[in-house]
Amino acid sequence: MTYCVGLLLDEGMVMLSDTRTNAGLDNIATYRKLFTFEEPGEKVIMIATAGSLSVTQTVLARLTEAIDDPEADEHTSIMKAPSMLAVAQLIGDTLADVRQDVAQKLDRMNQSASASLLVAGQRKDGAMRLFLVYPEGNFIEATPDTPYLQIGEHKYGKPILDRVIRSETRLEDAEKAVLLSMDSTLRSNLSVGMPLDLAVIERDGLCIARERRIEADDTAFQALSRAWSDALRDSFQKIEPI
Amino acid sequence: MTYCVGLLLDEGMVMLSDTRTNAGLDNIATYRKLFTFEEPGEKVIMIATAGSLSVTQTVLARLTEAIDDPEADEHTSIMKAPSMLAVAQLIGDTLADVRQDVAQKLDRMNQSASASLLVAGQRKDGAMRLFLVYPEGNFIEATPDTPYLQIGEHKYGKPILDRVIRSETRLEDAEKAVLLSMDSTLRSNLSVGMPLDLAVIERDGLCIARERRIEADDTAFQALSRAWSDALRDSFQKIEPI
Repeated sequence: MTYCVGLLLDEGMVMLSDTRTNAGLDNIATYRKLFTFEEPGEKVIMIATAGSLSVTQTVLARLTEAIDDPEADEHTSIMKAPSMLAVAQLIGDTLADVRQDVAQKLDRMNQSASASLLVAGQRKDGAMRLFLVYPEGNFIEATPDTPYLQIGEHKYGKPILDRVIRSETRLEDAEKAVLLSMDSTLRSNLSVGMPLDLAVIERDGLCIARERRIEADDTAFQALSRAWSDALRDSFQKIEPI
Repeated sequence: MTYCVGLLLDEGMVMLSDTRTNAGLDNIATYRKLFTFEEPGEKVIMIATAGSLSVTQTVLARLTEAIDDPEADEHTSIMKAPSMLAVAQLIGDTLADVRQDVAQKLDRMNQSASASLLVAGQRKDGAMRLFLVYPEGNFIEATPDTPYLQIGEHKYGKPILDRVIRSETRLEDAEKAVLLSMDSTLRSNLSVGMPLDLAVIERDGLCIARERRIEADDTAFQALSRAWSDALRDSFQKIEPI
């Protein structure tokens, strides 16, 4: 499995993903699930993936190939698409096509494969937008009422987001919140694993402001995780029993 | 859906359940899911249920009918079964039978119904034991390594249990922990709802030590929930960003 979360805040957008993939329980590997594309000053896009690796890798390969194609146009390349809505549509169509191709192969074995994506980005003179693209290619969008979207193992890390994330949350706090949301998921579910990939876009920055891989031995993340555990235990002890 | 959690601790056992049931999204009702049986000084049993109400109600009705039957023996009544293992087996067999009866009816409509149960109890001269009974009737048991078992919507409330519940956790803290675990679930999932039912057995007490229904307007639970939210937000603010 996977856990990815994306935030759409007044100050910018944050995306965090783990890197664990597994085929069955005994075949575990590390694959990047967070991808960034930018033309600084013009446009910036982040994509996070969850689901069957054979689907997500092919989707990303087709998107990248289309970007590099010298004959690419606004209907084929996410870097030429005229708006973030068009980007989400293009990615949704690609996902639906790939999923159908793979499904036809797997049907013969009575198996299925599926994937979903988070897509965040901004184009010059456009608004920041964050989408969750479903396996069928349709999508929903984050709004001020619901400023975060999750894919994969989303339940363990939802309570902390529900409590602290608002549109006006500062980016610094937002990065902390998604890391703590991931930390809760890592502790409770073995199918989500380190290292993590974190990327941040600042409003109207039109570039990737920060991108960071957090390895299992990252002392800053370990300190954050320990401080949160300690704080939770302290808070728990201080609360009056019912 | 449902969320129920059971703890097996050195000092005793705790069980907590919500009461929300739904048939589709627009037919929501309140039903008790936590049931207690005791013969003080001799034996005590708690059962929590999750899954299709038509299955769980029939299971409880059959178990209760067998207890009340004057001809009941150790093979039919959980109050006459010679050990907690035999109780779990009897309940597992009843669940498997009921599920199969219901499944035969539902198969014609291409529907399915399933349920799982938590069973906790102690008999005189026996150990306290906590079981999770699967829809098929087989079961697993809590141990000092894994002193809690959950059924239903278990993921939201797992991180807090993973952090604070150990075999040596005091009963007072344990009650607080399951209520906070439920609070996280209530906040993040509408299919779990108030009121709550809480029951506690103390080691070798051989009776229900405490049983309490916590209504939506329970001021003590509201205070606990608010204190925990405040503590989480305070802790969150105090933690250094990465």
